[in-house]
Amino acid sequence: MADRKTKQPQSVETVRDGVTIDDIAKRANVSKSTVSRVLNGSAVVNQQKQDAVHQAVIDLDYTPNMFAQGLASGKSMTLGILTQNIGSPFYAAIAQGVIEGLAGSGYTPLFVDGGWDHEREAVSIEALISRKVDGLLIVGGDIAASELQSYEKQMPLIVVARDINGLERRCVSVNNKQIGYMATKHLLEQRHTQIAFIHGIEGHPDAQDRFAGHLEALQEAGISRSDELLYQGDFSGHAGLKAVNYLLDQGISFSAIVAANDMVALGSRLALYRRGIRVPDDVSIIGCDDQAEAAFMTPPLTTIRQPSYEMGVVASKALLSSISNEDYEWSELAPELQIRESVKRFTS
Amino acid sequence: MADRKTKQPQSVETVRDGVTIDDIAKRANVSKSTVSRVLNGSAVVNQQKQDAVHQAVIDLDYTPNMFAQGLASGKSMTLGILTQNIGSPFYAAIAQGVIEGLAGSGYTPLFVDGGWDHEREAVSIEALISRKVDGLLIVGGDIAASELQSYEKQMPLIVVARDINGLERRCVSVNNKQIGYMATKHLLEQRHTQIAFIHGIEGHPDAQDRFAGHLEALQEAGISRSDELLYQGDFSGHAGLKAVNYLLDQGISFSAIVAANDMVALGSRLALYRRGIRVPDDVSIIGCDDQAEAAFMTPPLTTIRQPSYEMGVVASKALLSSISNEDYEWSELAPELQIRESVKRFTS
Repeated sequence: MADRKTKQPQSVETVRDGVTIDDIAKRANVSKSTVSRVLNGSAVVNQQKQDAVHQAVIDLDYTPNMFAQGLASGKSMTLGILTQNIGSPFYAAIAQGVIEGLAGSGYTPLFVDGGWDHEREAVSIEALISRKVDGLLIVGGDIAASELQSYEKQMPLIVVARDINGLERRCVSVNNKQIGYMATKHLLEQRHTQIAFIHGIEGHPDAQDRFAGHLEALQEAGISRSDELLYQGDFSGHAGLKAVNYLLDQGISFSAIVAANDMVALGSRLALYRRGIRVPDDVSIIGCDDQAEAAFMTPPLTTIRQPSYEMGVVASKALLSSISNEDYEWSELAPELQIRESVKRFTS
Repeated sequence: MADRKTKQPQSVETVRDGVTIDDIAKRANVSKSTVSRVLNGSAVVNQQKQDAVHQAVIDLDYTPNMFAQGLASGKSMTLGILTQNIGSPFYAAIAQGVIEGLAGSGYTPLFVDGGWDHEREAVSIEALISRKVDGLLIVGGDIAASELQSYEKQMPLIVVARDINGLERRCVSVNNKQIGYMATKHLLEQRHTQIAFIHGIEGHPDAQDRFAGHLEALQEAGISRSDELLYQGDFSGHAGLKAVNYLLDQGISFSAIVAANDMVALGSRLALYRRGIRVPDDVSIIGCDDQAEAAFMTPPLTTIRQPSYEMGVVASKALLSSISNEDYEWSELAPELQIRESVKRFTS
C-alpha cells in the first residue's frame, strides 16, 4: 500500500495484483461488460454466464476493488451498524436480526462498538461514514439526538432501541415502560402485593422506563409503593445477588421480585437458593428480556420477552427501503409475557 | 454522491460539505499544517491547539474525509474483524478483548459476521479488504487455510481460535483438547468413573478436540470407554436437556457429566431438576467455557474457563505489532479449572 501516495487512484476496471476485468472476461469467455455487470450486480445476466464469471474470479484470485468501485458508483454495498457492548444478549439478538434481515440483499453489515461511551460512538460512526457505508443503523447508545439528526441529513439512517424526537419514523424501538408494566401486572394478577423491584443501571433510559411501568401497574392496582422494596442495581447477575441478600438481611418482607432483566433474575435466584428459599413456592421471580438462558434456569424463568431479534430484522429492512427510496411500514413490536415456572399464585 | 463519477477523487485537504482545512485553521486560529497534524494524529501538537482544532471541527460540523485520506496515505485506521455468530458468549468475549486491546491505539475495529458459513465469510472478508482495513483479525470460522494464507500475503493478519498450518506465528488459540482433558480429569480425581460426555456440534473442530481430550484422560486413568455414555449434541441448551433425558430413559447409569460447553451444562442441569435428581449430590456436572451465566447457575457451575477475553486482547496487540512491523511475543493462553459447586466427590 505504500506506493499509493504516488499512484493515481485505480479505476473500477483495474484491480490489485494485476488481474484485470479483461483477464476475467477472457477466462470466462464473456464480454468485459458482462463481467462488470456480474461484479456490480447492476443488471440481469443469465446464470451460466454468472457462474463462468464467478469461476474465473476464483481461478484468478481476483479481489474486486470496491474501494475504487465506491468512488465510481457512489455505492459501497456495506451498511454501518453501531451497537453497544457487542455480545450482551440484547444487542446480540438485535445484531442477529440485522444479519438475517440483510440476507440476500447484497449488503454486508459492518459492526462497530460504541460501548455506551459518547466519544467512542462518535469515532466509530465517523469510521463507518468515512468507509463510505451506504446507510447507518444506530442501536442504543448515548450519542445526542441532535447528532443523529445531523447524520440523518447525510445518509439513510435507522435508530434501534431508542426514541429520538424528530426522527420518529426512523426509530424501531420497544416500549420499555410496557415491559415493566406487564411484569408487575402479571405478579399482581397472581395476587402478589409485596413486590421487590431490582432496578437496572441508574440513569439508563430502558431501566427508568421499566421502573415507570412498574409504578404505573402498582398505582393502577391501588397499591402504595414502599421505598424499601426498591434496590438500585446495574443489570448484572451480581446486582440480583446483592439485592436479594440486602432485602433479606434487612428483614424486608416480599413474596415476588421484578428483575430489571434476566441476568438480574439469575442472580436473585442464586441468592434465594443459597438461603434455601424455594422458587416459586416461597418467592416468585419475573425477569425482562427472555435471553437464551432464561428458558434453562431452574426453574425456567417467567419473563417479558423483548422482540430484539425482530427489531433487528425490521430495522434492516427499513434501512434497505430508505436506501432505495421506498416506503416501508412496520407496526410497533410488542413485548410478550413468557409464562414458565418461576411465578406462582400467592397464597397465605 | 452521484456526482462522484465525473469528479477527481478529493485530496485529504478538501472535505465534504465545502468545509476546508483552511476554514478550520482560521476558526481555530492555528496553521493549516497544525490542523492536518491534529486530524491525522501524525505528530505531537500541544493540548491547547488540539482543543482549538477539535472545537473548530465541532463548530463547523466537519467530517474528516478518511476515505480520501486512505487514498493519500494508504492507511484507514480501521481493522477488520471477522467473527462468528455475533453475540454467542465465546465470540462476544473475544470481541470485548479485541475492543479493549485496541483502546487508545487510534484504530477502530469493524466487525463482520461469518456465521460459520464459508461463502458469507468470504464475502465479509472481501467487504473489509475493499473498505481498506489496515489489518485482518479472523476469529474461528470455516474458511480454508489456503485462503487465509493468501490473505496473509496481502496484509497483516492474525487468526484467533483456530490453528492454521503454516501460519502458526499468526494464530492465537487455546488448546481445546486440554479443556476436554482437564474437565474429565477433574471428575476422575473426584472418583467418578461413569462419566457421560455430551458432544458439541458434529465436525466442529473445538468439539472434536474436547472429545479427544476426554478420551485421553479416560485412557490415562485406565478406564475403558463406553459408547452408550456418549451423546451427540450441538452446543445448545436443548442438546443438554435431550441428552440427559435420553440417558435416563435408556436406564444408562452415570454419576457425572462433561458438557461440551456451559449452555449444554445449563440444559443438562434443567433435565436433572425436572426429574428431581440433585446436583451435585446425585449427579455432578462440569462445563467448558465459563460464560457469564455459569457463576449464577444453581448450583454455580464448575467449569473449565476458556481465556476468550485474553485471546482477544493478545490477538489485537499482535495485529497492531504486525501493522507496525514490530515483533510481539505472547505465551500460550491456558484454560483454567474454575471450581464452584456442581461437582462432588463420588461416594457409594
